[in-house]
This record gives sequence, structure tokens and C-alpha cells, in this order.
Amino acid sequence: MKNIKLTIAYDGSSFFGFQIQPDVLTIQGAIESALLKILKEKIDIVGAGRTDAGVHAINQVVNFKTNLSIPTEKIPIAINSILEPSIIVKEAQEVPLDFNSRFSAKSRSYIYIIYIMDTSSPFLRNYVWHLKERPNVEEIKDALSIFVGVHDFTSFSKSNGEMTVREVYQISILERGSFLVFYIKANAFLRGMVRLIVKALIDLGNRELTLEDLKYILDSKKRGLVKGIAPPHGLYLYKVEY
Amino acid sequence: MKNIKLTIAYDGSSFFGFQIQPDVLTIQGAIESALLKILKEKIDIVGAGRTDAGVHAINQVVNFKTNLSIPTEKIPIAINSILEPSIIVKEAQEVPLDFNSRFSAKSRSYIYIIYIMDTSSPFLRNYVWHLKERPNVEEIKDALSIFVGVHDFTSFSKSNGEMTVREVYQISILERGSFLVFYIKANAFLRGMVRLIVKALIDLGNRELTLEDLKYILDSKKRGLVKGIAPPHGLYLYKVEY
Repeated sequence: MKNIKLTIAYDGSSFFGFQIQPDVLTIQGAIESALLKILKEKIDIVGAGRTDAGVHAINQVVNFKTNLSIPTEKIPIAINSILEPSIIVKEAQEVPLDFNSRFSAKSRSYIYIIYIMDTSSPFLRNYVWHLKERPNVEEIKDALSIFVGVHDFTSFSKSNGEMTVREVYQISILERGSFLVFYIKANAFLRGMVRLIVKALIDLGNRELTLEDLKYILDSKKRGLVKGIAPPHGLYLYKVEY
Repeated sequence: MKNIKLTIAYDGSSFFGFQIQPDVLTIQGAIESALLKILKEKIDIVGAGRTDAGVHAINQVVNFKTNLSIPTEKIPIAINSILEPSIIVKEAQEVPLDFNSRFSAKSRSYIYIIYIMDTSSPFLRNYVWHLKERPNVEEIKDALSIFVGVHDFTSFSKSNGEMTVREVYQISILERGSFLVFYIKANAFLRGMVRLIVKALIDLGNRELTLEDLKYILDSKKRGLVKGIAPPHGLYLYKVEY
């Protein structure tokens, strides 16, 4: 029995998210189908992050166990020859049997890309959040630190019934011409957490929320206080560390 | 009667090219449908360049004549609200009645983007030509000048029965990290001309053709001497000048 860790990138535009679901195209479903063809056995993969529909990954990590003896270094070429080109296996590594891509992960980081321009771009429509007006980036920078550390992030989650305490290690924003790029690293994330944080920070940069409002939202531990959510297509799972 | 010039950008990935055809999605078809909804009359648009399936445009130019009195500056917003987001009308201008986007054009320029990396990128698959090996760019640079000037470009065209003499004003190649970008400007282009020139130049950079071979191919005025063609998804109609 071998335990194989795959590092994969994907354009999430045409997928109904990572997690397998009946009758729709998902990342997990596509990879499991490809593995079935190569290994001739039904494989269940585990993903480090269950990205939503439209969300992308630069370095998603999955693992699976197999008894078959295909050389590890040949796995990426074999899978990539079968998979649609919107998913790429970048690397395969043999890992200890107790490695689990989800539960062994020490941290995940995401980036979120915003494009500021009076008209949208047909080339970027699936890859950025298009805004017409530039928010006040200095005010956003001043607010970032309220998210750092251990918090109950209920106010920044989309669904019920999870452990809601997470530790954010780092959050930053970078300005490059027409692009704003958020970077956020935590031990783990709640569903919708990055997109709700980004939405709240853009609302702050647009003077629709004050820093006090933002602190109040975080402290209140109540869903629904952030109005709307940043769209999925600006979000990228950037790195998973073990 | 007004003559309206539109400057448009599009992601050609999901279109069967510019020119209208029955039962398939084309750029011309999509724009004419949108205009029909707005102007309530059947409009025929003329395009400066009839891009092939998968080819993109950063500044395509079209024009059409109408008797209806929608203010010119409102046309982009009106069309963009109807068009799918893979086409954007960037600008509308009223032009003299004898202006024809195709026949009045003095020059067209295209760019062609190549991405060099050992693995392909799921994000770039529709937007670049992915090559695993870097060709010799210095050798390509030394060969570019053979295309400049007035030539019969039959050897670099895909179809019969056209005027085959064109004047290339400028051709250059730029190296930026993993990207190579060709720029080519001419009075007009034959079908497939940019993609066949790019393919021949990459073959030269890969030592599959010599400079003498390339001169021979151009001078022979015979189709089929370039082996294959660069894929459409690396090509962008960049600018049309009048």
C-alpha cells in the first residue's frame, strides 16, 4: 500500500466546486475518474481545501492510497494525459501512510484578485473580481490586523454546524496597477471565510463600513452582518503547508 | 442615417470565429443579435478583421449604419448589458458615412503570445500557445526582417483565391520571463498568415528550419511548405488604424 500526495492546479470556472456531487462536473470527480482509468480501481481522494464552484487553485493538495505499482513520478503525466486541460497535476510524491492532505495540513493560504477598471475585461471575467472604483487601500491596510490571531469567525462563514474558531496567521494587500491582491494564511478556513472577509474589507475601503463596524461584526459572531460576498472567481487556493 | 464605429474586445475561446454562420456562436452573430434588440432593426456589421475560431481581439473594429437616434455614447452600455461578458464594446464613435471598418483600414496589427514552461497552466490554456522548450530567440530575431516589406504571402496563407500580396510594416519579438510575444503590423493579412509566420519562426528557433529554408518558403509562393500552424488561442487582433 502506497500513499500518494498530488499537488494540483485548476481553473475552477467550469466546475461545481471541488467536492464530488452526482451529475455535475467537480474537481474531485474528474480526478477520481482519471485515477479509475489509470489504476483500474475506485479511488477516493481527500482534498486539503474544498473550494466552492468557480474558485481556482494554484496548489491544491490531495492524497489517495493504492496497491498498484505505477511509479510515483509517472503519475502526473499519466493523469494529465486523461484529465481535461483545466486541471493539471503538478507533482506526485509518496508520503507516509498516516499523511492526510486535509487533516495533516498545518496551514492554508489563499489569494484574492481584484481588478479595478471602468470597463470589465473579457479575458479576466473568470479570474478576478471586477470593480469600477478603487477603494481606499490605506484604510483597508489599517483594518487588516483585526483579523489576525485566534477568533471565532462565525460572522465570516456561510454555513452552520462547524467549529468556528480559526487562527489567521497573516493577511495583507498588495496594489499593482489595476490589480489589488489579498493574501491570507490561517490554520484552516470556514466556508466562505476569505470571500466574506474580502467583501467586508472592500466595503470598508468604499466607506460603507467603518473600522468600528468591522470589529463589531467580528465580535458579534453572527452570520449575515456582512452584506453580500465577494464572487468566487477572484479566489485562488494558493498553498497548503504540512 | 448615422454610421457608427465600435471598438470591441473579445475572448474568442467559445466562439466559432468572427464571421456569422448558421447555428453556431460567432462574434458577428452575437453583436448583430444585441443590436437587433436595442435598435429593433436588422443590422449588418462589417468587421476590420475576420478572426478565426479561438482567436481573440483587444481592439477589433466594426461599423454599421442606422437611422435610429440612440445617443452614440450610450451604445456601449446598452450593448454590453445584453452581450455575454466574453465580448465588450469599449467605445462607440460616429464616423463619416463613407467609413468602412474593413476597407478604410490602413493597417492591422496582431500579437501572438507563447508561454514556455515544462507543464501547461490551466489558467492560460485558452490564451497562449504553450511550448515546453524555449526556442533560440536570437535566431528568430535575425530572421524577422525577411517578412518586412511587400511580398506575395501565398506560402503563409490557409486558403485560395485571394489577392496574396501584402505589405508587412513591422514584426518583432519580445521576451518576458516565460512569455514570448510576437508583434506584427501589415496593411492587411491573409487567412492564417500570422499563425503560419509564427509557426515557421518557432520551427526556425527550434532548428527545424534554417533561415535559407524560410526564405525559400516565402519565395516559392506555395501553400503547405510550413508544417502545421500555430494554434488560434495565442493570437490577438491588437489594433486597426485608419
